[in-house]
Order: sequence, then C-alpha cells, then structure tokens
Amino acid sequence: MTIDLNCDLGESFGVWSMGNDAAMIDLATSVNIACGFHAGDADTMKKTVDLAKARGVSIGAHPGYRDLHGFGRRPVVGLSSSELENLVAYQIGALQAIATMAGHKVTHVKAHGALSNIACDDDMTARAIASAIKAVDPDLVFVVLANSRLVAAGEALGLSMVHEVFADRAYEDDGSLVSRRKPGAVLHDADAIAQRVVKMIQSGEVVSITGKTIKMRMDTVCIHGDTPGAVEIARALRKALKDNGIAVAPFKTAK
Amino acid sequence: MTIDLNCDLGESFGVWSMGNDAAMIDLATSVNIACGFHAGDADTMKKTVDLAKARGVSIGAHPGYRDLHGFGRRPVVGLSSSELENLVAYQIGALQAIATMAGHKVTHVKAHGALSNIACDDDMTARAIASAIKAVDPDLVFVVLANSRLVAAGEALGLSMVHEVFADRAYEDDGSLVSRRKPGAVLHDADAIAQRVVKMIQSGEVVSITGKTIKMRMDTVCIHGDTPGAVEIARALRKALKDNGIAVAPFKTAK
Amino acid sequence: MTIDLNCDLGESFGVWSMGNDAAMIDLATSVNIACGFHAGDADTMKKTVDLAKARGVSIGAHPGYRDLHGFGRRPVVGLSSSELENLVAYQIGALQAIATMAGHKVTHVKAHGALSNIACDDDMTARAIASAIKAVDPDLVFVVLANSRLVAAGEALGLSMVHEVFADRAYEDDGSLVSRRKPGAVLHDADAIAQRVVKMIQSGEVVSITGKTIKMRMDTVCIHGDTPGAVEIARALRKALKDNGIAVAPFKTAK
Amino acid sequence: MTIDLNCDLGESFGVWSMGNDAAMIDLATSVNIACGFHAGDADTMKKTVDLAKARGVSIGAHPGYRDLHGFGRRPVVGLSSSELENLVAYQIGALQAIATMAGHKVTHVKAHGALSNIACDDDMTARAIASAIKAVDPDLVFVVLANSRLVAAGEALGLSMVHEVFADRAYEDDGSLVSRRKPGAVLHDADAIAQRVVKMIQSGEVVSITGKTIKMRMDTVCIHGDTPGAVEIARALRKALKDNGIAVAPFKTAK
Repeated sequence: MTIDLNCDLGESFGVWSMGNDAAMIDLATSVNIACGFHAGDADTMKKTVDLAKARGVSIGAHPGYRDLHGFGRRPVVGLSSSELENLVAYQIGALQAIATMAGHKVTHVKAHGALSNIACDDDMTARAIASAIKAVDPDLVFVVLANSRLVAAGEALGLSMVHEVFADRAYEDDGSLVSRRKPGAVLHDADAIAQRVVKMIQSGEVVSITGKTIKMRMDTVCIHGDTPGAVEIARALRKALKDNGIAVAPFKTAK
Repeated sequence: MTIDLNCDLGESFGVWSMGNDAAMIDLATSVNIACGFHAGDADTMKKTVDLAKARGVSIGAHPGYRDLHGFGRRPVVGLSSSELENLVAYQIGALQAIATMAGHKVTHVKAHGALSNIACDDDMTARAIASAIKAVDPDLVFVVLANSRLVAAGEALGLSMVHEVFADRAYEDDGSLVSRRKPGAVLHDADAIAQRVVKMIQSGEVVSITGKTIKMRMDTVCIHGDTPGAVEIARALRKALKDNGIAVAPFKTAK
Repeated sequence: MTIDLNCDLGESFGVWSMGNDAAMIDLATSVNIACGFHAGDADTMKKTVDLAKARGVSIGAHPGYRDLHGFGRRPVVGLSSSELENLVAYQIGALQAIATMAGHKVTHVKAHGALSNIACDDDMTARAIASAIKAVDPDLVFVVLANSRLVAAGEALGLSMVHEVFADRAYEDDGSLVSRRKPGAVLHDADAIAQRVVKMIQSGEVVSITGKTIKMRMDTVCIHGDTPGAVEIARALRKALKDNGIAVAPFKTAK
Repeated sequence: MTIDLNCDLGESFGVWSMGNDAAMIDLATSVNIACGFHAGDADTMKKTVDLAKARGVSIGAHPGYRDLHGFGRRPVVGLSSSELENLVAYQIGALQAIATMAGHKVTHVKAHGALSNIACDDDMTARAIASAIKAVDPDLVFVVLANSRLVAAGEALGLSMVHEVFADRAYEDDGSLVSRRKPGAVLHDADAIAQRVVKMIQSGEVVSITGKTIKMRMDTVCIHGDTPGAVEIARALRKALKDNGIAVAPFKTAK
C-alpha cells in the first residue's frame, strides 16, 4: 500500500513570497508548480524546479486562469474551448523550458484553483485541459480530482491519470468538495486530518460531511503549503502513514 | 545567391490588433512570434502558428521584456543574468508548446525591441539570451543583428546563427543601427529600400549614414510588419530581389 | 425633445489602438473613458480627456473588471461588495486626477462590459457600483441601462441618473438586452438603426425582438465606437434625429 | 525640536502580503501608500487608508513605475515627460478616491523605488513628478530626498516640500545615498541607527560613509517597513528620539 503526497509550490510572485516551499518539498513526493498566470514567474519557477530536482521530487505544471490579483481563485467566465487549451498549453510549455534548463522534466499537470473547480463540473473546460495536455505531450500525467468531470475528460483522451483526494477538505455526499464558503469545509486539526487520510487510504472510501461513505480511487493526497499549520499537518500525516504501514512514494504513471 | 526575409508577427494582444499578419506571412520566409511579454498572448500565438504552418513558413520565438504597456521597447534595467535567462526560456517554452499543439516547430529565436537593443551592446544580456536558447534547445537557431555583441555571445556557446540586417534602418559608421530618435534613422520609400537591400546583398556591404561601407555577413533581412506601408515595402523588396536574381528562401541553419 | 448620445472612448492600450475616437467625439455629446483596467492607460486617458475638452464634450469614467486580456468582457466571479467598490472608486479617481490635470472634469460614471452586464441583473454588484460613485463624489451622474437593476441601486442611494438605451442592440420582452450570442442581437444597418432610435425617442418605447412594446425612460443613447461602420451609423443617427426635430444635447444632470 | 517619521505602507498585492503594516503604523507619523503600479491594489489601498485613518496618521501617495514583477525597483527607461506626469497623476487620483471613500485625505506624495532614484539625479523625471503633483492638487506636499534634484523641481513649481533623510542608509560624500549594491549601504543595527538619527537631527548634518559631514535640511526620516528587524529599528529610534527630547510629530506642510 503506497500513496503519493502532492503539494502546490512556487506560488510566490516577484518580491512577494508565499508558503514554505523549502519545508514542504521534503514532505511531498510530487509538486505542482505555478506557471505565472495566477502566481509564479520565470524566476520563481526556476528556483522551485531547482529545489525539486535537488530533492529528487517530480514536478508538474499547475496552470491557472490569467488572474494574478485573485490568485486564480476567481472564475473567469466565457473562455472558449480553444482559448482554454491555449491558456493551458502556454503554461505547460513555459514550465517545460524552465525545467529543461534546470535539467529536470515536467511529468504531470494539475489545474489550479478556479480553473480546476470549474473543470470539475464543466465538461467543456475539463476536456480543454485534457486536450491541451495531450497535444503538448501525451505522456504527461493528468492529476484529476477523484470523482470529478476531469476523470471522464482524461479517459476520453486516453491520458494517464492520477486520482487525487484532499487531506484537509470535507466532502459532500456526491463526492464533491464542500465549498470553502460553508462551515466545516476545511479541516484544521493535524492529528484528525492524519487519521482521516489513513482511513481513507486503507478503506478506499471517503466519509462525507453527513457521514456517508463514498468509494473513491485515490492515488495522491493533496497537502496544502500555504495554509497556517501546513507543515505541521503534513508532518503529522507523514508520521501516521508510516505508523500504519502505508508507504509514501511518487505516483505510478501507467495508463 | 539567396536571402531570408524575416518578419515579426503575432504582436496583437487580446482584442487589440497589430500589423497585417495575413499579408506579411506571404512575403516573409521566417517569422518571429511574440510570446506574451511585450505583445501576443496564447490565443494570438496559436493563431499565428496556425497561419505560419498553413503557409509552410518557419517560426521563431520573439521574446521581450515583461512590458505590455511599452511594447517591450523600454529598457528594463537591473535584471540579473539568471533573470534574463529565465525570462527568455519561459517565452521560448510557451511558444514551443503552442507550436507542438499546432503540429509545427519552433526553429529559431530572435530577441525583441529593447531586450535586443540592449543585448546588441551588452555582453551580459547577450550571453544570457544565448544561454537560455542553448539550455532550452541547442538546435534552435539564434538570429543575431549582424555586427552586434549578439554574435560573440552565440559563437561562445556554439549556437547556429543567422546574421540579420535591416531593410529600412540606417546604419552608423560602426555598423550599429542609427537610433530611432535621430533623423534619417528609418527609411520610408519602398523603392529606395528595395534597391538598397539588393545592393547590400550583392556587395555584402552596408553603406552607413555618412557613406562609409561596412562589410557584413547577412543571412536574413528584417522586414517590418507594423509600420505604415509595410506591405508595400515588402512587396517592392520581393520584386527587386527577383528582378536581380536573388532567391528568397528560408535561412540555412547549419552551425 | 432632446437626447444625449454617449460613446465609449479611450479604449486603446499602449501601442495598440482601438476605435476612431477623433471621429466619434464629434458625434457624441458625452463620452465614457476607459480607466486602465479593461482598456486605456494613463496616457490614453490624458489624450482622450484633452480631446473631449477641446470639443467641449462631457466625460465620464468607464470602469471595468481588471481584465486587459479579455477587454473586461469576461465576468470575473467572486468579488465581494467592498472589492467591487474599491475597484470602481480606484478607476474613477484615476480619471479624475487626469481630468484635473487636463483642466476638465469627470461628470458621470458608466460601468463597462461584463461589470455592467452582471450589475444589470445582480443587486449586490449594482449597489457596489452606486456606492462607490456616491462615496467618491455624490454629484457624479450614474449612467444606468434603462430597465436594469442599476436603476434601483442608483435610486436607493439618491444618485442623479441618466437612463440609457442602445441604438444597435435588440431587446428581450422583459426589456433586457438580447445576449450578443443570440442571432439578431446586434443591428448593423445604419438607416434601420437611425429610424428605430427616432421612433424609440418619439414614443418613449422600445420594440422587443418579438414585437412587444416596452415603456422605457431614455435620456441617452449609446453609440458604439469600436464596431465596423460605427462612424457611419452615428452619422446616420445624427441626421435622422435632426430630420425629425430631435435635438442632440448633453444629458441634464439634475437629481 | 520635532521630526516626522515616514514609512512606506500598503505594499501587499492580492493574496501576497508584505511588511507589518499594523505595527509600523503606530511608529510612523506619516505613511506613503503604494498605488497599484509597483505594489498595492484597490483593496490593499482601502485597508491601508482605513488603518491610517483609525490611527490618525496622515497619508501620501507613493507612485512607482508600472512594474509589479520588479516591485518598481527596476528603472523603466524612455518614458517621456508627459508619460511620467500621467503615470504619477493616475496613481495619486486613484488613492485620492479611495481616501475620499474612507473619509480620509491624501496630503502628500513621495515617489517610490526606481522612479524616485532616477528622479533624484534626472531633472526631467523630477520635474514631471512635481508637475503632476501641482496639476492634480497644488496643496499636496512633495516629499523629497534631501539634497537631490527633487528639491529644485519642487522649488521651481512652488510646491510645499518636506526634506527626507534615511535612517538606515549610508550617504556618499556628495550627499546622495550609497547604492544598495555597495557594501555598507544599508545599516542593520537598531541602536546604531537610532543614535545616528538622533545626531543627524541634533546637528542638522549627515556623516557620509567616508566621515565627511554634510549639512542637510531634514523634516522627515524614512523608516522601512519591509526589512528584517524593521519594527525593532523603528522602536529603538522612537525611544532614542524621546530620550533625547526630540518630539515625533507629523511634518508641517506650510509652503
């Protein structure tokens, strides 16, 4: 029994810093790097890729809407399918070049923030993301929220996929994430989060906010790097996984 | 006797249009595509690559400073060598991904505006550009202003190079371009420009603004797409070249 | 019987030009100037204010979402009421300073694109815009789409209001604009547009796309400056108004 | 004997935070608020103005180059005099509107980063800044680096001026600041800084890096909010001033 732990990294911009990348890189087995549209810039990307390479951690592109001011958390409505494809392809390519320069390689793609949230429910957006990935490099692994419309989009194009669950987010009965605006959406207690994830992996099930159990494939667990207590939560999770005999290792990428 | 004609394309942004790409693409044998920092965006890049592919024209990345408002014509001072490398690598990669998606391939890189102007005189900037090209893909051809510091930078890294002269710009006695702020810097008469270029190619010499002749290697002639009369100038040039038995063909890319 | 003709101006950005401001300024009696978020920049604003001052045309701020790439036509979802107020206040203030520098004065505010469209249906957004106007300068006139939620928002705060109808847009039976995505949404024939507007003003009624008549207060007619044939349409409209004895004059701004 | 302490505030952007505004506001008697071009945004500006109003601290606009990525620390070359005026006026106006909305008032202007550095040596830039201030509101106080070209620019236009010295920066023999790139340019020891400032105020002289004394008018001392130890340095300075009978109070604004 193994699980990947993924974390969003490189979300600083210019002189502004975010998260504790140096600490999180040691706790994750794959990282998703912001590509300059919602956060990140060429310099932050290079620094983050260098860090990942030094630690032997695999890297993915983390494309978002063109929205630095809102950190890509605001849905930008009205982009066509091809505009979405271009948006995603551009960001993947930018990171690929930076990675090549650093002697590293982009192995996966995970959409960020509102782009991901919209895509989880909207087939057009989901397909556009999948389509861009396939067109840029069909060997790139598509990291998809388990149980979302991203799964179908990836399947339709034959992409390798990694199903993701969240360590610190509550789930609705239908297997979707509870909106951050609702009470109880985000869990904060490190030990409770750690125990919950262990159970999720052991059972292959998520327990929803109302207590319903939902069967779910889970290849990777998202650990946040930009929330208070992020490092403590990730450490508690790492320890609980080890204590329960669950190995933490990079996701397998077979189709 | 053959010459390449290169043109900057894809310099629209969002709803704003610039140049007459559809006309210029038929007059150029290689095009340099803006990569989103001084102009262009993922959609414009895709559209421009599609156009170039349809016409069988080779494409290059045209990276500039992060300066949409000033169209990359304002020097941005104080970037370090690695910041410049990252800036250039990011933009090349973005275009590569868009090109891959379109089934086309980026074959060269030519710096834009102030980034190019600064690099023509400043070894650090010139080397950073060359370094980024080599690190992203050593097979990319480096389009350099003939007689500038870009030449030494490309040579030092063993890059394939294409030396460029300008059809419509006056030259100083030292072989540098006359600053646009000086009178006589830009030529406007289509026939005069055409005859001048023919002579330049036949003689392998440029005649400076004071009448001095300067020996210069010239593999490609830059034709502008965004100036008034651009299309007429390019057509006159094409005709004059043909009338004088000079073939117009994509540059050779051997090292 | 008099009517104001308003036009959006100053929607260029940096080197990119849009519309035919020099022609449109002579056809409009009030102009709405982009404030740098969806279009425009400090230089374009200054140039546009100078132009309006020279022609004696009154000016308004035309605030939009922070969305240069999408020209403010893409709804940006999730802004809070106070974020919307700040967004609008910032843009009004920027134009006020530029106007003061030019010896002119901002007299009204009209929201742009998606910000306006959203506000026409969404009370929170409508109130935030009205609130910002009142807080920055309660003497500013609020230009509102006739029959929209903007009217109630302006009334609630006691703002002076000018009700606007569109010359070239079809109306639904409920008095809202037909979405641009539907066929027949935009009218293109200059004479038909001119005759329609004359009838609208004479009758105080709009005829919807299905033929229903809708009573509507109308103080100003929006004429577009960035569509093909814009100048011709505006000229035809001007002529038809004159032929029918309807005076074209700046809107009255009493509460 | 009294002195003003000024501090740059509101230099966060979107989700990214900078400095410790809540602590610094209690240590400063005037604050300079970023206006969205090098840092800050409408929301950060509103929050910062609210904070300053609540503490009764006077506020100024802190305009910079359009350079979020470089935090306005990179010279942007080639702006014309009128482009600089527009840039500055736009930013002042944006803050004025936000301040009006918050029931506060902008009383001064201090240029930021590279814009200020360039202006300290370049008359054209200095005059453009002064010109914009005068055109937007001639009652605004111009905060100028003592001994710089800003002084002459402000005098030429008859602006009220406040001369500024730096608490933690070394001075050259000619009274200019030692470049941050040189060793010894920035002082870090809180007590040493505090004692140095006390001596500067008591003597009306600055001691240069080589030991030369330079006579200087000083109305305000700049305390940084974004450097490590900023709060400690400001507290040490406050205490030393009090211990030496120097009152800390807002600058006087008479011409």
